[in-house]
Amino acid sequence: MPITVANEGFKFQSSSNNNSSSSGSSGSRSSSNATSPATPPPTVHHHVNVDLVDAALAAMEVPTGKRTGWQVQSSFLARHTHNMIRGIVESLKMKPNPEKPMIPLSIGDPTIFGNLKASDETMKAVLKAVEGAKFNGYAGSMGHDAARQAIAKYSAHQRPDMEISPNDVVITSGCSAALEMCILALADRGQNVLVPRPGFCLYKTLAEGMNIEIRYYDLLPDQEWRADLKQMESLIDENTAALLINNPGNPCGSVYDADHLKRMIDICERHYLPIIADEIYEHFVFPDVEYVAISSLTHEVPVLTCGGLTKRFLVPGWRTGWVIVHDRKQRLGDAVNGLKNLCGRILGSNTIVQGALPDILVKTPQSYFDGVIELLHSNALMAYRALKKVRGLNPVMPKGAMYMMIGISIEHFPALKDDVHFVQEMVNEQSVFCLPGSCFQCPNFIRIVLTVPAEMIEESCVRIAEFCELHYKKDTRAFIEHSTLLDGSVNF
Amino acid sequence: MPITVANEGFKFQSSSNNNSSSSGSSGSRSSSNATSPATPPPTVHHHVNVDLVDAALAAMEVPTGKRTGWQVQSSFLARHTHNMIRGIVESLKMKPNPEKPMIPLSIGDPTIFGNLKASDETMKAVLKAVEGAKFNGYAGSMGHDAARQAIAKYSAHQRPDMEISPNDVVITSGCSAALEMCILALADRGQNVLVPRPGFCLYKTLAEGMNIEIRYYDLLPDQEWRADLKQMESLIDENTAALLINNPGNPCGSVYDADHLKRMIDICERHYLPIIADEIYEHFVFPDVEYVAISSLTHEVPVLTCGGLTKRFLVPGWRTGWVIVHDRKQRLGDAVNGLKNLCGRILGSNTIVQGALPDILVKTPQSYFDGVIELLHSNALMAYRALKKVRGLNPVMPKGAMYMMIGISIEHFPALKDDVHFVQEMVNEQSVFCLPGSCFQCPNFIRIVLTVPAEMIEESCVRIAEFCELHYKKDTRAFIEHSTLLDGSVNF
Repeated sequence: MPITVANEGFKFQSSSNNNSSSSGSSGSRSSSNATSPATPPPTVHHHVNVDLVDAALAAMEVPTGKRTGWQVQSSFLARHTHNMIRGIVESLKMKPNPEKPMIPLSIGDPTIFGNLKASDETMKAVLKAVEGAKFNGYAGSMGHDAARQAIAKYSAHQRPDMEISPNDVVITSGCSAALEMCILALADRGQNVLVPRPGFCLYKTLAEGMNIEIRYYDLLPDQEWRADLKQMESLIDENTAALLINNPGNPCGSVYDADHLKRMIDICERHYLPIIADEIYEHFVFPDVEYVAISSLTHEVPVLTCGGLTKRFLVPGWRTGWVIVHDRKQRLGDAVNGLKNLCGRILGSNTIVQGALPDILVKTPQSYFDGVIELLHSNALMAYRALKKVRGLNPVMPKGAMYMMIGISIEHFPALKDDVHFVQEMVNEQSVFCLPGSCFQCPNFIRIVLTVPAEMIEESCVRIAEFCELHYKKDTRAFIEHSTLLDGSVNF
Repeated sequence: MPITVANEGFKFQSSSNNNSSSSGSSGSRSSSNATSPATPPPTVHHHVNVDLVDAALAAMEVPTGKRTGWQVQSSFLARHTHNMIRGIVESLKMKPNPEKPMIPLSIGDPTIFGNLKASDETMKAVLKAVEGAKFNGYAGSMGHDAARQAIAKYSAHQRPDMEISPNDVVITSGCSAALEMCILALADRGQNVLVPRPGFCLYKTLAEGMNIEIRYYDLLPDQEWRADLKQMESLIDENTAALLINNPGNPCGSVYDADHLKRMIDICERHYLPIIADEIYEHFVFPDVEYVAISSLTHEVPVLTCGGLTKRFLVPGWRTGWVIVHDRKQRLGDAVNGLKNLCGRILGSNTIVQGALPDILVKTPQSYFDGVIELLHSNALMAYRALKKVRGLNPVMPKGAMYMMIGISIEHFPALKDDVHFVQEMVNEQSVFCLPGSCFQCPNFIRIVLTVPAEMIEESCVRIAEFCELHYKKDTRAFIEHSTLLDGSVNF
């Protein structure tokens, strides 16, 4: 019997209607995930009997003909790989107020205004690597040995009581590729990964096209963005492949203490769940806040920690990231080899930077990092103090990373439909551009970046306050009228 | 009805037996693809009725419990992403002859011996990009505009009668990522892509884990490695997503003339099939051979051309590649957007090199490229002339790229089981390491690289000749005895 349909590999394509199946599944996915973030994902799940499916498929096979015209279509993966931020931003109808210079508080690239620069040591190390011309050839698929050795030493805090071997380190094309590798190494389609809400939208971008389900656990703004552990645990089923923790976190600037991290580890231990730790903001904490690597707190639960040069060394364009495997009890099994296999697909990151890595990681002085933190903390305080006074806004003081989330009491802004509309109108009136919380699955918040020059923070806070004062309605009856005003762009 | 099983996304995992389904499908795939390369892939294919499958799945759903122990496993993708070369090389039992220094003719990295170097212009351009410190920030997901503009101009020969727009250019992390993007943008699991045999094993590495079938069309050694067009066409069915053409080619050093390329285009036109053109060796042709970009020959068939700095500019470690979209009649439909979506996953390649790209592409002088070609051509001639005289060997003179394939009349080497065994014993006796043709789906050939210093080519040819003379048996009866000798490592 010529079954050409592999167990995990049959395709849904008929010559008459090429995309009915996939667009159908897409529709149902996005409606549950994206458009109603408040609805908890379903918790009842099922599995299928493989042999029965095979038999069913075999019985249904019908010979078909060849193509009769051009019908090229994008793959499911490509169709379902979306940048949610770009999607939302592109939907905005923005015309900045020509009388006010634009202040973009939206851009996650800390290098863009020139106030934050890579260290001299970083730049010198790269120059040296170029001049030597010794780093033009291929590296091994996991990266150069010396670079992996340097990363292992640099990351000793992640496993203080046991040396990290270079063999536990995989160098990747930026932290994005590190995250992609971890998710794709652990999760098959139909499985799910738990990620934070609010959270970095890349997790969804990476998973969705592979038909890996993203389930959101909630971070609680009134508890310094700690995770709702009970709700988190309720999401877990046997198809849960990993828990992803982003600490310090984007977009909240949250930093968890050891106690909270241990509670998350306990959940993973109870459910035999590996952790993907997105620690691209490691060490990025404000004064008197402690950063604890989650891998340092457990011997039982395997942790894949993702990091990179991007944020701490302020070189996001260089695309130099890494995964560090913490698996003391060999519980990841063949997934470690799987991770290494995946390196063979695109052969990692730029070798010039790999050549410079040992110097970059060792020679950049603490004073450099301190200076960056000082600038961010000062900006955070300034923005927090200014916006705390604004009626209708509820800024949450961050503890680290590069961002601050600001709650909007949208019921007091009857002319503004939601966070997206709020952001749009603030551009049109005040030329201040923040990202709507919806970009992070968190409506009725906005995110500002703290890496811009202080004078921009100052000026933008004045304008945000002006904008809010103009639109704020104290009368709670405004809330009742709210829905009737949604579609007309009423200006007060 | 809570169907959590998406059309393209259900999973096969039961808590009692986690990998029965996937390992089963793996086994059947690899046996048809890898271990019997001479067997043509089956040409009868079927499609499935989506609604019926959904109904079948829904009927089979059974609630299941939670995990009761650590059962982490690698994803199907990770388990099925293999580097075939590494797999075969690691299986070799090699102990180089201590009396002879090792000559590796196996390594595809042209920079490894220092005889071939990046041009001064290339290195200066990168130094300039580092010194300016203007290329540390994120690039757009498709790459920096100036770099894409430069690539568009540099690639004008690919579409001489119509300007290439920067918007047709996507910068990727090496040509590997360019190929990955093209394959994954066009093909869904269950579909198939036609690739050359012998051919670069990365195509299979990229496709297999995604359950995209690789079908091999044969290149004919006695016809200067032209494709067997009849056999190629016989492989096409409605599930064929693309034809991949590698010209100039690895491992054969083949270069096709316009006539042959047009015949392949004709086939694609008849079957409405887009082309993925792996032209990483563009311009890499020996004197009096013409390189023709396949995209320059057709207005009808869409072509995605993959290129990069790696080979021509001798900087493989820099991971700078690109895709150029040629789609004059908009036949790729949403696949072009799909390709661009995929850029959002890992955000492309190192920005320092992107910053240097305009200078690299414009300033590197023709004399530099000519010098490289001269060295390769001279090495190719030397090896060809020397090995042509060796009994039992049939070298095929390449027309370009960096490699030469040498046929082995294995029936005349009764002590040597196959090309893999041949390679192993040549290391053990002569310390000369070539790659067996099996790494390229082409048994009873070996591949040598031509980028090594001339004296290595010379010395290795002497040793290869010595090795062959020692093992060659003229008597055709040796062929009859062959099978009985397969398993004992008889030494003559």
